Amino acid sequence: MIPESALAMDKTAAPRGAVRSTPRVREILSWYSSDNPGVKSQLARMLNHGALAGTGKMVILPVDQGFEHGPARSFGPNPAGYDPRYHFELAIEAGCSAYAAPLGFLEAGAAEFAGEIPLILKLNNHDVLHDEKDPLSALTGSVGAALRLGCAAIGFTIYPGSSMARQMYEQIRTLAESAKAHGLAVVVWSYPRGSEISKAGETAIDVVAYAAQIAAQLGAHLIKVKLPTAHIEQEEARKAYEKNAIPIGTLAERVRHVVQSSFDGRRIVIFSGGAKKENDEEVLNEARAIRDGGGFGSIIGRNSFQRKKPEAVKLLRSIMNIYSGTTP
Amino acid sequence: MIPESALAMDKTAAPRGAVRSTPRVREILSWYSSDNPGVKSQLARMLNHGALAGTGKMVILPVDQGFEHGPARSFGPNPAGYDPRYHFELAIEAGCSAYAAPLGFLEAGAAEFAGEIPLILKLNNHDVLHDEKDPLSALTGSVGAALRLGCAAIGFTIYPGSSMARQMYEQIRTLAESAKAHGLAVVVWSYPRGSEISKAGETAIDVVAYAAQIAAQLGAHLIKVKLPTAHIEQEEARKAYEKNAIPIGTLAERVRHVVQSSFDGRRIVIFSGGAKKENDEEVLNEARAIRDGGGFGSIIGRNSFQRKKPEAVKLLRSIMNIYSGTTP
Amino acid sequence: MIPESALAMDKTAAPRGAVRSTPRVREILSWYSSDNPGVKSQLARMLNHGALAGTGKMVILPVDQGFEHGPARSFGPNPAGYDPRYHFELAIEAGCSAYAAPLGFLEAGAAEFAGEIPLILKLNNHDVLHDEKDPLSALTGSVGAALRLGCAAIGFTIYPGSSMARQMYEQIRTLAESAKAHGLAVVVWSYPRGSEISKAGETAIDVVAYAAQIAAQLGAHLIKVKLPTAHIEQEEARKAYEKNAIPIGTLAERVRHVVQSSFDGRRIVIFSGGAKKENDEEVLNEARAIRDGGGFGSIIGRNSFQRKKPEAVKLLRSIMNIYSGTTP
Amino acid sequence: MIPESALAMDKTAAPRGAVRSTPRVREILSWYSSDNPGVKSQLARMLNHGALAGTGKMVILPVDQGFEHGPARSFGPNPAGYDPRYHFELAIEAGCSAYAAPLGFLEAGAAEFAGEIPLILKLNNHDVLHDEKDPLSALTGSVGAALRLGCAAIGFTIYPGSSMARQMYEQIRTLAESAKAHGLAVVVWSYPRGSEISKAGETAIDVVAYAAQIAAQLGAHLIKVKLPTAHIEQEEARKAYEKNAIPIGTLAERVRHVVQSSFDGRRIVIFSGGAKKENDEEVLNEARAIRDGGGFGSIIGRNSFQRKKPEAVKLLRSIMNIYSGTTP
Amino acid sequence: MIPESALAMDKTAAPRGAVRSTPRVREILSWYSSDNPGVKSQLARMLNHGALAGTGKMVILPVDQGFEHGPARSFGPNPAGYDPRYHFELAIEAGCSAYAAPLGFLEAGAAEFAGEIPLILKLNNHDVLHDEKDPLSALTGSVGAALRLGCAAIGFTIYPGSSMARQMYEQIRTLAESAKAHGLAVVVWSYPRGSEISKAGETAIDVVAYAAQIAAQLGAHLIKVKLPTAHIEQEEARKAYEKNAIPIGTLAERVRHVVQSSFDGRRIVIFSGGAKKENDEEVLNEARAIRDGGGFGSIIGRNSFQRKKPEAVKLLRSIMNIYSGTTP
Repeated sequence: MIPESALAMDKTAAPRGAVRSTPRVREILSWYSSDNPGVKSQLARMLNHGALAGTGKMVILPVDQGFEHGPARSFGPNPAGYDPRYHFELAIEAGCSAYAAPLGFLEAGAAEFAGEIPLILKLNNHDVLHDEKDPLSALTGSVGAALRLGCAAIGFTIYPGSSMARQMYEQIRTLAESAKAHGLAVVVWSYPRGSEISKAGETAIDVVAYAAQIAAQLGAHLIKVKLPTAHIEQEEARKAYEKNAIPIGTLAERVRHVVQSSFDGRRIVIFSGGAKKENDEEVLNEARAIRDGGGFGSIIGRNSFQRKKPEAVKLLRSIMNIYSGTTP
Repeated sequence: MIPESALAMDKTAAPRGAVRSTPRVREILSWYSSDNPGVKSQLARMLNHGALAGTGKMVILPVDQGFEHGPARSFGPNPAGYDPRYHFELAIEAGCSAYAAPLGFLEAGAAEFAGEIPLILKLNNHDVLHDEKDPLSALTGSVGAALRLGCAAIGFTIYPGSSMARQMYEQIRTLAESAKAHGLAVVVWSYPRGSEISKAGETAIDVVAYAAQIAAQLGAHLIKVKLPTAHIEQEEARKAYEKNAIPIGTLAERVRHVVQSSFDGRRIVIFSGGAKKENDEEVLNEARAIRDGGGFGSIIGRNSFQRKKPEAVKLLRSIMNIYSGTTP
Repeated sequence: MIPESALAMDKTAAPRGAVRSTPRVREILSWYSSDNPGVKSQLARMLNHGALAGTGKMVILPVDQGFEHGPARSFGPNPAGYDPRYHFELAIEAGCSAYAAPLGFLEAGAAEFAGEIPLILKLNNHDVLHDEKDPLSALTGSVGAALRLGCAAIGFTIYPGSSMARQMYEQIRTLAESAKAHGLAVVVWSYPRGSEISKAGETAIDVVAYAAQIAAQLGAHLIKVKLPTAHIEQEEARKAYEKNAIPIGTLAERVRHVVQSSFDGRRIVIFSGGAKKENDEEVLNEARAIRDGGGFGSIIGRNSFQRKKPEAVKLLRSIMNIYSGTTP
Repeated sequence: MIPESALAMDKTAAPRGAVRSTPRVREILSWYSSDNPGVKSQLARMLNHGALAGTGKMVILPVDQGFEHGPARSFGPNPAGYDPRYHFELAIEAGCSAYAAPLGFLEAGAAEFAGEIPLILKLNNHDVLHDEKDPLSALTGSVGAALRLGCAAIGFTIYPGSSMARQMYEQIRTLAESAKAHGLAVVVWSYPRGSEISKAGETAIDVVAYAAQIAAQLGAHLIKVKLPTAHIEQEEARKAYEKNAIPIGTLAERVRHVVQSSFDGRRIVIFSGGAKKENDEEVLNEARAIRDGGGFGSIIGRNSFQRKKPEAVKLLRSIMNIYSGTTP
Repeated sequence: MIPESALAMDKTAAPRGAVRSTPRVREILSWYSSDNPGVKSQLARMLNHGALAGTGKMVILPVDQGFEHGPARSFGPNPAGYDPRYHFELAIEAGCSAYAAPLGFLEAGAAEFAGEIPLILKLNNHDVLHDEKDPLSALTGSVGAALRLGCAAIGFTIYPGSSMARQMYEQIRTLAESAKAHGLAVVVWSYPRGSEISKAGETAIDVVAYAAQIAAQLGAHLIKVKLPTAHIEQEEARKAYEKNAIPIGTLAERVRHVVQSSFDGRRIVIFSGGAKKENDEEVLNEARAIRDGGGFGSIIGRNSFQRKKPEAVKLLRSIMNIYSGTTP
């Protein structure tokens, strides 16, 4: 590691357009010491991009609902979203750290917005025309496509708890290995789900923390989980939480526990907001809890692209301000 | 994109045999900005071929019914169709944009008609000697065969809603990636079908729009769906249609919604006519609705090859005239 | 195509050992215009070999019953057939167009009879020690083995109607692509069979015609089907036969319909005789019907190798005389 | 080959945008009977494109001089030619059959002009910053690049007579085999050159005819040679010309002999014009000699792109009119 | 080997179109006991083809002079030979055992004459636009091309004595290994040549015998050498010839010694005639010497294709009659 003193650069003299990693970004990158400079560059690209550049926090725009839920449910509330270019524009305008979407949506805009926003190609997707208790998403993209489209990372969803989880773990093993070798970062959506998990269990604190751990162990650079409740799903886990008096009473405490479960905070963990909320304050309070619990940020889809762009930008900026400390 | 002015060409003087893309064709090609010039050339080949050349509209002749339904049901009404050369001739004579068929039919005529009609090799097929609730078509062709036969595109059928859909999505992912790398366009037939979809649901507006979206997200350049009814299959979708007051009352409105669901009209979507109709006017009215809804054209199999060639050519030309605006 | 006149050859002076394709053979080869000269050479080899050389008709000896039915059932009636050399001799002596067998039988004689009879290596086989309603034959040979053994073609059985049909279609797709690239012809045995087809349905005219069509669409150069009965298995098909008044009353009419269903006679279709018949005249009448219906010949196994060689040769020659027009 | 009569098409009714091969184009395609339909389609594409569509004649625009001679020598006379788009426009506007250039020039315009002009990717190039007596061009493109760019053919230069000729023959062997398998046509520039050939010998009739023969034997579909002089370079050849009284007195006679040397006219041979000529009539007279000698057309670089576009178009059209018989 | 008695076939009854190997052909095939049935079939194909079918003798037509010497020197004397189809016709009409040529000539006729004459694809070629003391031919074909074109064998020239001989030996090693695995026979042209061999030495008995031995040791199935003179090139060899009193006085004796040097006659050795001879009797006497010395036949290029076809056929038939014993 180059000594800080050697950097000795007069930042006021830094030219417009220059990019310097802050100490915090350098610290985060140091956690990925087994990764090659290509992967680190992509992580740095996201951490140095947008309104949260340099803060070590991230807000990502994900738009895979067209595939996952169907077009009318996804884009009916704000029809501008049918156009794939809209989401690039939203992410750029709001100052997001990255934009994540399936193959088709990225192919339909990656050239027009080349270099303007870090892209994450979601490599697997699932639709609800055929739905199962124990789902297995289809592989819809590839590391080659991610490279061809100029992406910063691949994205992949695992469903811990599904009877098909093994297949997903093995798929991401192969894909992550290839992505890393080609200098791409790896983002894992870890969403517990399956015939042996109750509906409440999908966001239970023990289950979410476990899901984050699995993603980290699978080699994810960046982990996305749902915000956990105080519910505990597994009896064996309950004993551990009680015996060790792990604090999980507040959302911030639960976030802190999830971050702790992700290699003691040495992996970037961000949280998804879920379905569109009527009350913006609810969204902002979640962000405050994430911040207070040491979370790295949010991945906000429906709560952004399902409202008009000015409103969406406003909400996203408010969230970012919370993460950057500009507003409490 | 080269500015029109730079082309500065006296088009009235354009020599016989020259091909120029119209502004509309150039606009359509601009939507495929992630694709290489090879793919764009094949899309241009189809858009600049036949009676609809330059209009941005397409009429494609597909003949896979011999495999899908059997020879007597397919060719009994017009026995000339047993001969594979017949369909090349029909497509050429009628001025179709392309001709799509399985391996055997293309192998039996591709040399004789070399360069006279853009070809689409259907890479998967299904027969009804064994039929299933949740079908999975067999892979019957390859990208290599498409290149060997001089095709402009590969064609592939997915059955969203089938419990086998995942396999199909993964097959087309692999095939499309290879096709694109080799400069071939990708045409996806997206036909919802499976044990969780009702018969009415197969053409329900929510399901057809969803099927179009899935094909687009999978990276299809050209999407073929069935004409949708006003039926809504999924309860979650119904809420979205009602809440957002999406107009689906007329066929033209439904076509418009499907086109919207295909990246806001930035992917070519064409519609299939289904079984042979007794009344030609019905076919023509469907074409009018497709035109009025902003659809890109038709893929007309049984309604063309199951009648005598002069009648088929007449009907196809009538449809083309509707698309080109020659007749109302 | 080189004009006949350009060949300007005094055929009466053609030396012993010369091979010239007749106009009929040239016509048949012209149907395979997508194939390379290697494939065409192998088709010519079979069409120019044996007693039917140059007539455009073929009689093939197939001996896979040892694998398919067991040795005693197959060779008990004529124990000379236990010796693999016997079948080479029978095929050569009778003047057959080709001899088809599994790997073992060909390996046991291909060297001794090198160059004396075109060989077809059956690439898949099925035994009845384990039998299923929906069978999938085992791959027992390869394109490499066919080349190593000096074969003219690969042979492959599909069972349309089996729930395993998809696997078979995909196997022959891959094998045929490789065979064609290496200059080998492709022979497909298309035998409808499976849990959704009745026993009578296996030889129903609609099903057999459909099976021939599927083989042709899969890219077969030479198709082998069973002689069809007047039974119609599928209701949808019945409507087509009745509405279009397709004549299927006589065996010759049914053969004609199967030939028509094989690309209007532009693919070679031959018919199998099935189990050994007591009455030779029945076999000969079948040959007459095949000839009258425009069929290309027979594939005769049990009716030849289950009788003494002189009788078998006599029967085969009688059949060939019917095809060549020497006898009525 | 399908008989013309079977096509039974009212050609006067052929719709705008339709493409039909003329009997002459069909005849030319028949010479390439070992090739797959993909290759035939590309040959048909070039033969059916531009002002000479259907005539069996071709005029190709080649622009590799930027690489071969340097930019100022190449584009100084008409600076519009520095812009890669210019040459696409020139080829399209003039109605050329195809446009040939190295990788960079094609990459810089293939997308903008997708589908408007058949492209030939020159796969090897040589510069004069380092020049040798026995040159070996560098491989600068690939079959994969040709597919990616939507090319109709690969182009390759051999220098028969160079001590490096063996390497070039082996390179084109490999490249041509791959190109043909992928459905691309093969164009060979055969330019004798090397330490054992005199300057006059480079265009000697014996040497040019030999160079054409070598290209044809290497499997070229389309051969480009320089216009030959009456000089004879090799003593052994002189004997043959004299003894057999091969007429080589006029340019037309020499062209005829080169065409004859290219498989008796069964390979397309076109002739290059060489350096820019002051006198247009000289260029036109060369075209007349090529026409009278049965040549298939011209490849005209410097004489077209080194003058202003209107003049260039006018000259190219004049040449095309000579080939099409519109003017004497 | 199957005992003759087991074949028990009434040969007088052998049908038209049947092929039976004679005892002599079976004996020859037995020498290739390490080869697979595919290779044996190809050897049998050549030995059972044409006017010499079954005699164990061969006359092959080779036409690579267009590449090796140039078109005018090759085809000027009989301009019909410029057309690639001519040589197929000549070989077929004369009843040759096989026709050997480079890629281009075979591609230009293999489809039209499919199955009518065994083909040998010459995989390397050399031209005289650049000639060297120690030549290395260019690889101009491949085993894949030989399969695609339906060839019976690959052909390859080695120049023992060239400083490049090692490269050639290693090339044929690789090519022969692949050819044999794919069921193709291997024909080696063994022509001593190089800076250390005198002009007279190229046909010296010791050198030619040595060249035949090398080809045999390299695994050739069929060896082609030039007719040797009584000259002895190498001093060490001279001692052996003299000490052992090897008879080399007459041409027949020298042929016998070359045959002996080719595994004591257990490899097929044929002899080339060289340049066109004025006196046919000279050619016939050479054939008599080859016959008397136990040679297996001739490969006759210029002496056949450089005269009018009727004369060429007459001469070839006369030679064949000498080999078959029909004339003395």
